[in-house]
Amino acid sequence: MKAPSASVPPGRAMYALIEELYPICRSITGNGVRDTLAILARLAPVEVREIPSGTPVLDWTVPKEWNIKGAFIDGPDGRRVVDFRESNLHVVSYSVPVRERLSLEKLRPHLHALPDRPDAIPYRTSYYEETWGFCLSQRQLDELPDGDYDVCIDSTLEPGALTYGEAILPGASADEIVISTHVCHPSLCDDNLTGIAVSVFLARWFAAIPNRRHTMRFLYAPGTIGAIAWLATHREEAPRIRHGLTLTCLGDSHPFTYKKTLGGDAVIDRAAALVLATSRVPHALIDFFPYGYDERQFNSPGFRLPVGSLMRGRHGMFPEYHTSADDLSFVSPDRIEQSFEVCRQIIEVLEGNETYVNLAPYGEPQLGRRGLYRATGGTDIADLQLALLWVLSLSDGSHTLLDIAERAKTGFRSIRAAADLLIAHGLLAPAG
Amino acid sequence: MKAPSASVPPGRAMYALIEELYPICRSITGNGVRDTLAILARLAPVEVREIPSGTPVLDWTVPKEWNIKGAFIDGPDGRRVVDFRESNLHVVSYSVPVRERLSLEKLRPHLHALPDRPDAIPYRTSYYEETWGFCLSQRQLDELPDGDYDVCIDSTLEPGALTYGEAILPGASADEIVISTHVCHPSLCDDNLTGIAVSVFLARWFAAIPNRRHTMRFLYAPGTIGAIAWLATHREEAPRIRHGLTLTCLGDSHPFTYKKTLGGDAVIDRAAALVLATSRVPHALIDFFPYGYDERQFNSPGFRLPVGSLMRGRHGMFPEYHTSADDLSFVSPDRIEQSFEVCRQIIEVLEGNETYVNLAPYGEPQLGRRGLYRATGGTDIADLQLALLWVLSLSDGSHTLLDIAERAKTGFRSIRAAADLLIAHGLLAPAG
Amino acid sequence: MKAPSASVPPGRAMYALIEELYPICRSITGNGVRDTLAILARLAPVEVREIPSGTPVLDWTVPKEWNIKGAFIDGPDGRRVVDFRESNLHVVSYSVPVRERLSLEKLRPHLHALPDRPDAIPYRTSYYEETWGFCLSQRQLDELPDGDYDVCIDSTLEPGALTYGEAILPGASADEIVISTHVCHPSLCDDNLTGIAVSVFLARWFAAIPNRRHTMRFLYAPGTIGAIAWLATHREEAPRIRHGLTLTCLGDSHPFTYKKTLGGDAVIDRAAALVLATSRVPHALIDFFPYGYDERQFNSPGFRLPVGSLMRGRHGMFPEYHTSADDLSFVSPDRIEQSFEVCRQIIEVLEGNETYVNLAPYGEPQLGRRGLYRATGGTDIADLQLALLWVLSLSDGSHTLLDIAERAKTGFRSIRAAADLLIAHGLLAPAG
Repeated sequence: MKAPSASVPPGRAMYALIEELYPICRSITGNGVRDTLAILARLAPVEVREIPSGTPVLDWTVPKEWNIKGAFIDGPDGRRVVDFRESNLHVVSYSVPVRERLSLEKLRPHLHALPDRPDAIPYRTSYYEETWGFCLSQRQLDELPDGDYDVCIDSTLEPGALTYGEAILPGASADEIVISTHVCHPSLCDDNLTGIAVSVFLARWFAAIPNRRHTMRFLYAPGTIGAIAWLATHREEAPRIRHGLTLTCLGDSHPFTYKKTLGGDAVIDRAAALVLATSRVPHALIDFFPYGYDERQFNSPGFRLPVGSLMRGRHGMFPEYHTSADDLSFVSPDRIEQSFEVCRQIIEVLEGNETYVNLAPYGEPQLGRRGLYRATGGTDIADLQLALLWVLSLSDGSHTLLDIAERAKTGFRSIRAAADLLIAHGLLAPAG
Repeated sequence: MKAPSASVPPGRAMYALIEELYPICRSITGNGVRDTLAILARLAPVEVREIPSGTPVLDWTVPKEWNIKGAFIDGPDGRRVVDFRESNLHVVSYSVPVRERLSLEKLRPHLHALPDRPDAIPYRTSYYEETWGFCLSQRQLDELPDGDYDVCIDSTLEPGALTYGEAILPGASADEIVISTHVCHPSLCDDNLTGIAVSVFLARWFAAIPNRRHTMRFLYAPGTIGAIAWLATHREEAPRIRHGLTLTCLGDSHPFTYKKTLGGDAVIDRAAALVLATSRVPHALIDFFPYGYDERQFNSPGFRLPVGSLMRGRHGMFPEYHTSADDLSFVSPDRIEQSFEVCRQIIEVLEGNETYVNLAPYGEPQLGRRGLYRATGGTDIADLQLALLWVLSLSDGSHTLLDIAERAKTGFRSIRAAADLLIAHGLLAPAG
Repeated sequence: MKAPSASVPPGRAMYALIEELYPICRSITGNGVRDTLAILARLAPVEVREIPSGTPVLDWTVPKEWNIKGAFIDGPDGRRVVDFRESNLHVVSYSVPVRERLSLEKLRPHLHALPDRPDAIPYRTSYYEETWGFCLSQRQLDELPDGDYDVCIDSTLEPGALTYGEAILPGASADEIVISTHVCHPSLCDDNLTGIAVSVFLARWFAAIPNRRHTMRFLYAPGTIGAIAWLATHREEAPRIRHGLTLTCLGDSHPFTYKKTLGGDAVIDRAAALVLATSRVPHALIDFFPYGYDERQFNSPGFRLPVGSLMRGRHGMFPEYHTSADDLSFVSPDRIEQSFEVCRQIIEVLEGNETYVNLAPYGEPQLGRRGLYRATGGTDIADLQLALLWVLSLSDGSHTLLDIAERAKTGFRSIRAAADLLIAHGLLAPAG
């Protein structure tokens, strides 16, 4: 994929990226991740890092690297009944190499299917227990005749590296916003090619902004072990993270879900809540729980970094999750674009959330003589005019613009615009 | 209007005052305010103050004084189509003098009507932009034939003064309760002759109370510029304001609305909430927002005085608001009297809200041997007896009587009566 | 009643105890209480204390001791119309001795009935005013013919003692949990033979636990004066009470009601709320109010001990309350057993509520290599596994296990089990 031209709507451009990334067989290590990051690097300044297998990272150890060339099961009649080339979900991720002939009875414990979703191939992994397995639809499984099967997994599991990418966009401050997406899933679109696509387009957008306040870090790492490896190797940088988001499942048709940080009242929590509420998109705010994606590593007791998670469908709670039904038809350009827009507005809040003091704090300043007020009294007040009054009313040095937007129950952009107008008219100045 | 005799129900007496004030053409300056204050001074010790035009007050300047003798529009056929004598709303307040003949086309930008309320004359002002205009019903406007019109506004806009009134009723303490009402509206009853009437009758009632604790200040000033002028000229007194209320729209048939102070949890907020809840009148509590009447000046960052606002219909949210439909038929003696009663009870809470200590704090004192308890056990407890127990239970020096009434979900008068009874029996004493 | 064998279900055993206690005529002093405590002492180490009449206790004085042998009213025709032997509710508790012949008119002020519940005998007392009276059903009352009546109350009201019992089960800490039940009611089952039965069976259960953390104190004292007498004579011990419960009305068919401590957010309040919520029993949490049973003495300003109250039906709010309808048919073994179980779980929370630190706080520890995690990823997480993650996530030294269970919205036993498993695997240690 080339860098999209300005004329391509971002939804379509993100969807095209997902189409390109979809066939790649990713896992928590290996060439699938490398190939993915190489494609991302054409769109944003994503740098690739590698940590050797065997490296201790926090309580964990970087595992061996896994790669796979192909895999199949041939039936008693010699017909190929399962083929990795048709779907990389067919192989349990991290399956050790195998080439064997065995009866259906012996094979069966290595076969995974979903009785309640008979047409879907499940997604299964076995990173830390050396075994092998195939995933197939229940319908396929039910049709297997008795007899002997030829089984082949042409994989390697050897010392190598864990690969991850990061794009760092420096701002005026060393304070960081981190956007983290897991890149370890094979052909699953919603989880998490949508997260990856939104993240890399956010990086493109943010890179083009002049006068950036925060330093932004976009992480593309395998789930769990990737975040743990990053945290283990960035103990000095980690405390600079002021706000963070993990992104996943951003293309399905469910309402948005924002999962709060462990603290539950971080600025990122409030920014996400405000943007979702004032964008009037259907959504739910849910409390932190210590299961999910990499927000759990960032929020762990030793780090306690305020990282929330934005998704549409909640992982594990929709039937297509972690199955072959999470394909290109399950996500749409429009929904991905809307997700991008929500993320962008959240970042705008974080960037624009400053604290000011009203320079004419005694009574209301006379906006009329400054051209900031309708001249004829007696009618209702318009939105921007009310935003001006809110900013003047609460800018006492102890309220941020986010505080003000929350109380005004209005979009952050209106409050930010009102603040800029008041600054321009000498009625507002930065606090402190 | 003479001082009402004790036999006149206050609702009727307040309504009679409104009838007397209704025809007067008030604005933010001028003889209409002077005439109004002169009438109020017959009912309560209202003193009149004047601040000269041109005086700088906070971020503003006291404007020129406006007075008007008459105004009309004569049609092409010589017939008078608009006449100030029929309604002082017909002239945009602060219209500069004009005497001109001009075509309907030229006249039209000076004519204001309400297409969606075709029978009502709107109320319009132009205090800070020198212009002129007429207000009329949409029906009148639609009937104007083409042709030339003779237009006359016999007004003056000249250096003079801003006039306001205040009644100060000293109490044992210099701590103040302020009741503020705007007096700048011409012939509009609900907004704000009802506020003015309730305020002046509260002053009469409070003046008659012996052993007043707070100093009470009743302000009668034009909206915005009046409060600003008062604050500018009372920088030393302002911080003594402990509790305040602005009063408006107290005679219409909507449920009560109490608009909280900016802080939202001031004693006045809690007193108003308690009285409205325990009076079982339909009502809503709404959060502060920086638009409305003079509460916005008192609550501004430089002052942050805890001033809430009591109204029935919310300004700008009922169709009669700021139109000729806000007339004598729009308000009723009964509703004005109920509003007066709510205000009186709020002031009673502020006055009676003291903190005590239980002098027998270990276990429950034996109320029976003091005659404070029904002698035969086994049945339900009556309200006053429960109030006694609440006061004993919470009077540890850290709960005010208002705290106690809130927890007991009971009227303040019961809690106050219980406290007085316990004091009389030596079981309670002032804290500290 | 003998100590129940292990094979008797506790509900049945508690009901049998209630059957044995039911006929005894208890009051706030006297042999009824002594007989009751003697029965309890066969089940748990209940020690009996006596405080002489006339002893000053806090604001009160221990009253004379009341005992009764019999009482009756004989009608004009010599027929016995009321007989104490049929129900000890027939005599107003603390009635002075009387033997008189008097007309129905003179007798009537001494007769108490319930017009709205014509079949029930009310329960009435007159502890602190020396008088006498009879209680009877309205139906009985209505049938009394005019004429002269022979009235006899064979009671004594003389210097004696107030009797109460306590069972103290020492734990590793001097910090106490107090379970307090009033023992002053005559033949009323729900109020409070159920509270007494549940309490004494809790004492039996707790006594059998090795390694008890808290010292537990089970109090069996007459209402109000008993708690006051205990507090007066235990001024040094009282401050050691960390958590407490009064128990009453635990056998009726209403949903559970937990009445909070005055503070409202004590550990006992949260423990009760958690157990009731996670047991999924219908229940309501209600705020403290200074009327009810002995929680009001413990929570008084001088003591402010965090003692809540557990009940099913709320005293005074069901028609059988304090009438002869509160009999053996009004309570059931199953419901009493469920009440016992709720109480036991609350005590388990208090006992098990410790604070830990995660010893591998940076990121999530690798549970898999410790056998604490399912090996194959991609599926949903089970309850215990989520409990492990919750404990790890929040064990930073500032969250108790109760805090964690509340956030996890899960039963305390799961959280406690997860903590024990993590301790066993060296991942968790006591804080501080």
